[in-house]
Amino acid sequence: MTIKKLLKDIASLHETKQEIKGWITANRGNKKIRFIAVNDGSTFANLQVVAKAEMELDLELVDKARMGASVIIKGTLLHTPEGKQVAELVAENFEILKNTDEDFPLQKNGISREVLREIPHLRHRTNLFRATMRVRSTLAQEIHAHFADKGYLLAPSPIITGNDGEGAGEAFVVDDESKDLFFGKKATLGVTGQLHAEAYANGFGGVYTFAPTFRAENSHTQRHAAEFWMVEPEVAFADLQEIIRIADEMLKTVITKTIEKHEEEFTFLEKFVAPGLNEKLQSYIGQKLTVMDYADVIKELQKVSDRFDEKDIHFGIDLATEHEKYIAEEFVKGPVAVTNYPKDIKAFYMFQNEDGKTVAAFDLLVPGIGELIGGSQRECDYDKLVTRINEMGIDQEDLQWYLDLRRFGQGMSAGFGLGFERLVMYVTGVENIRDAIAFPRTPGKLMM
Amino acid sequence: MTIKKLLKDIASLHETKQEIKGWITANRGNKKIRFIAVNDGSTFANLQVVAKAEMELDLELVDKARMGASVIIKGTLLHTPEGKQVAELVAENFEILKNTDEDFPLQKNGISREVLREIPHLRHRTNLFRATMRVRSTLAQEIHAHFADKGYLLAPSPIITGNDGEGAGEAFVVDDESKDLFFGKKATLGVTGQLHAEAYANGFGGVYTFAPTFRAENSHTQRHAAEFWMVEPEVAFADLQEIIRIADEMLKTVITKTIEKHEEEFTFLEKFVAPGLNEKLQSYIGQKLTVMDYADVIKELQKVSDRFDEKDIHFGIDLATEHEKYIAEEFVKGPVAVTNYPKDIKAFYMFQNEDGKTVAAFDLLVPGIGELIGGSQRECDYDKLVTRINEMGIDQEDLQWYLDLRRFGQGMSAGFGLGFERLVMYVTGVENIRDAIAFPRTPGKLMM
Repeated sequence: MTIKKLLKDIASLHETKQEIKGWITANRGNKKIRFIAVNDGSTFANLQVVAKAEMELDLELVDKARMGASVIIKGTLLHTPEGKQVAELVAENFEILKNTDEDFPLQKNGISREVLREIPHLRHRTNLFRATMRVRSTLAQEIHAHFADKGYLLAPSPIITGNDGEGAGEAFVVDDESKDLFFGKKATLGVTGQLHAEAYANGFGGVYTFAPTFRAENSHTQRHAAEFWMVEPEVAFADLQEIIRIADEMLKTVITKTIEKHEEEFTFLEKFVAPGLNEKLQSYIGQKLTVMDYADVIKELQKVSDRFDEKDIHFGIDLATEHEKYIAEEFVKGPVAVTNYPKDIKAFYMFQNEDGKTVAAFDLLVPGIGELIGGSQRECDYDKLVTRINEMGIDQEDLQWYLDLRRFGQGMSAGFGLGFERLVMYVTGVENIRDAIAFPRTPGKLMM
Repeated sequence: MTIKKLLKDIASLHETKQEIKGWITANRGNKKIRFIAVNDGSTFANLQVVAKAEMELDLELVDKARMGASVIIKGTLLHTPEGKQVAELVAENFEILKNTDEDFPLQKNGISREVLREIPHLRHRTNLFRATMRVRSTLAQEIHAHFADKGYLLAPSPIITGNDGEGAGEAFVVDDESKDLFFGKKATLGVTGQLHAEAYANGFGGVYTFAPTFRAENSHTQRHAAEFWMVEPEVAFADLQEIIRIADEMLKTVITKTIEKHEEEFTFLEKFVAPGLNEKLQSYIGQKLTVMDYADVIKELQKVSDRFDEKDIHFGIDLATEHEKYIAEEFVKGPVAVTNYPKDIKAFYMFQNEDGKTVAAFDLLVPGIGELIGGSQRECDYDKLVTRINEMGIDQEDLQWYLDLRRFGQGMSAGFGLGFERLVMYVTGVENIRDAIAFPRTPGKLMM
C-alpha cells in the first residue's frame, strides 16, 4: 500500500501488517533501535519506521541503509496520534533493494538551489522539489480536468511548424542530421499553438492546447527559458470580457483544487519557500478580479514615475516588468487584467477597437511574476487583418491558411496563453523558472 | 447554452427560449420554410433549426447562409420525440455572424481523406474528423484523469535533449537561426521521455509523461509520422508482469470511459469508418489480456511461415509488421502482450533475464495496428548496464547521469511507451496516422 493511503486510513489500519516500498530520507538511532524515515513519492510526508534489535532484525544492516536507498519494509502499522508522527511502522523485515553510493549528492541538508540545478535528475528527492514538482503535476492534471469538465477539446497544435507565429524571429530551426531540409522547407519549433487552436475553435467552439513551446531568446532572466509549456485556450463566439472571465475562472478553479490536494506541500512552501504564499493565493481566489484599462494604468504609473528605471511613461509604451510588478504588487495588491493596449505594441491578430488606437487585448499581471497570461479577442475582419499584416511587414503567404479562417465562418473568437511554468512559480512561490520545470533549458545550458 | 446541454436536458427545456451559436452543416427548404442543421462543436449531433416565413423572419437572408457559416439563432426549443430529430429550435431571430466564401472546400460530401489532408485547418468540420478528433481529445483527457486518480506524477521530461535516447540516430537537430550552438553543444529533439521519467520514478514512484516526440525517419508508412505524442509511464518497484498489468488496466479504463462519453461518435465510426469497431473494442475490454512468450510466438509463426513475405522465422528475428498482425489478428484475435524478446534486438536498458538470451520486455500488439505499446522492466544493475552499453557501442559519457540512477537508489523500475496516435487509430478505426493527428508532419510535408 502507498504511504499516502496508509496515512489516510491510519485509524482503521492500526495494528495491521503492511509492506512499504520507498526511499530512505533519514536513518538515526543506535544498536538497539533505529528510526528510519521513508518516503515513497505518493505523498510529501514520510512514514516513520522503527527497527528494534529485539524483533530479530539485523540492525547492522539497517544502519547501512543510506539516505536515498530504496528499501522494502514489512511490519506492523501503529496509529500513534499522541506521538510526533501520526503513524509508525514497526519493522519485522527490512530489505535494502538498492543502496546509494557514498557520493550521493543529497545526503546533507541546505544545498543551494544553484547547486541543485546541476543535478536535475536527483533534485526532486529534496523537500523543495518534492513539493514543487508535485504541485506542478497537479496543476497540469487539474487544467485538463477543468477543460474536460467544460467540454473543451484538447487541440493538438503542431510543434514543428512552417511559420513562426508572431513573427518575432526567435524560433529554433529544426532539421535532420544531414541538414537537407527533411520537410522540404525550413522548419521551426512553434512559439505558439494559438493560430492552429483558432482553426480548431472555428468548428469545435471551445478548445485548448497544453504543449511545449520554444523561444531561441538569448535571455538569462529568472522568468525566461528556451523550452516551456503553454496552455492556450481559444473560444469561438467569445469577446474580450468573456475570455477574461474564462481565464479567471480557470485559474481560480485549478488553484483551489490544487491547494485542497496538497496541504502538506503548501505548509512546507509557506514555511520554507514563500512566507505569505497561502494568504496570497486565498486572497486571489476569494476576490473579484480587478480589470484596468491600459490608459488608466499609464496614468497611475505617471504619478509615481520617479521610482522606476523606465521613467518615460506615456500612452504607447510597452510596460516594463517593473511597471507590471508595481501595478500588481503595490497598486492593486493582487492579480489584475490590463486591457485595451495600444495596437502598435501588440500582435497583428488582435481585435481592433473602434478608437483606431487600441486592441481588445489583455495581460493578466500577478504579484511576484508580472505577466502570467496574455490574451485577446481576435480580429475576424479579413481585410483589416491583411492591412495590419502588411503594415507590420509580415509575410502574408505563410499565413494565408490562417487568414482564410475568416473567409470560412470564423466570425468571433478569443483566447489566451498561460505560461505554465509561470503559473507553477506563482502557486509555489519559487522565484526562478529553472526551479519550476524538471530539466530547464536556457542559453548555453543543456544538461541531460 | 451548448447544443450538447440542450439535447441532454431536452425534456425539461421544452418550449423554452434558447440561443445557440454554431456553424451551419445543412440548409434546405423553400421560400416559406427552411430547415437548417447547426453544429456548435459541443457534441457530434446537429440541432435542427426551423425558420418559417410566418415568424417574420427574412428567409432570403436565411437562404444565404452557406455550409460552414457561423450563426447566432434565437428561438423556441421544442421537444419532438416523435420526429426524426429529438429536438428542434423554431427560429425567431437569425443572425449570420460570418458567412463562408464560395470557395469553402467542405460544401460537398464524400471528399477523399487524401484531399482533406491538404486542408488540416478545415477538415475537423467534417463528420469523420469531428468524431476522430473528439475521441482523440477525450482519450487524452482520460489518460490524465486515470493517472491523476492513481496518484501518478506528470513528469515533465524535456523535449530538447543532449542525448538521443535509444541511440537510433534518428533525432532532429535543433539550433537557433544563426546555427551557432545556442545551447553550447549539439541539441536534438528527444525521441523518448523515458530516461528522464526513470529519474523521476526514482523518488516519486509512479510517474508518466504525455508529450510530443520526434523521429527524423524517412518513412512513408501509414503508421509513422515525424511528430507524434507518446505516453510514457514509469513505475518504481514494478517488474514486467506488473507493468503489463498497469498498461492493460490503463487502456481498458481509458477506452471504456471514452466510449461512454461518445455514443454518437462511435455509432458514426462503426457505420462509416470501421464496421465491427464496437465489437472489437468491447471484446478487448471484456477479456483477460493474452500474454505470449516471444519464443512461443516464433513457434506459431513458423507453422505458417509460407504466408509471410518474411519467411525466415527463427528465434532472434525482429518481428515484422506482418508477423505482429498475424499474431494479433488471426492467432489471438485480439490484443496480445509478447514478452521476453531476444536481448540483441532490444534497447540497452532492458532487464536481462537469467537465461542470458532474453530481456524482460513486452510489446502490446493489437489488430489493425501491430505494435501499440512497447515496454520493459529496466536493468538496474550498474555493471550489467555499462557492459551492455559498451557492447552496443553507445557513448557512456552522455548517459552517465542515467547510469548514476542505479548508484543512487534505483533498485527496480518498469515502464512503457504508448504511441498516442496509434491508440487513436485503434480506438477510432482510422487507418492512417495522418488522420489521427490534427496537423501531421511527414518527410517532405509541412503544411501550416
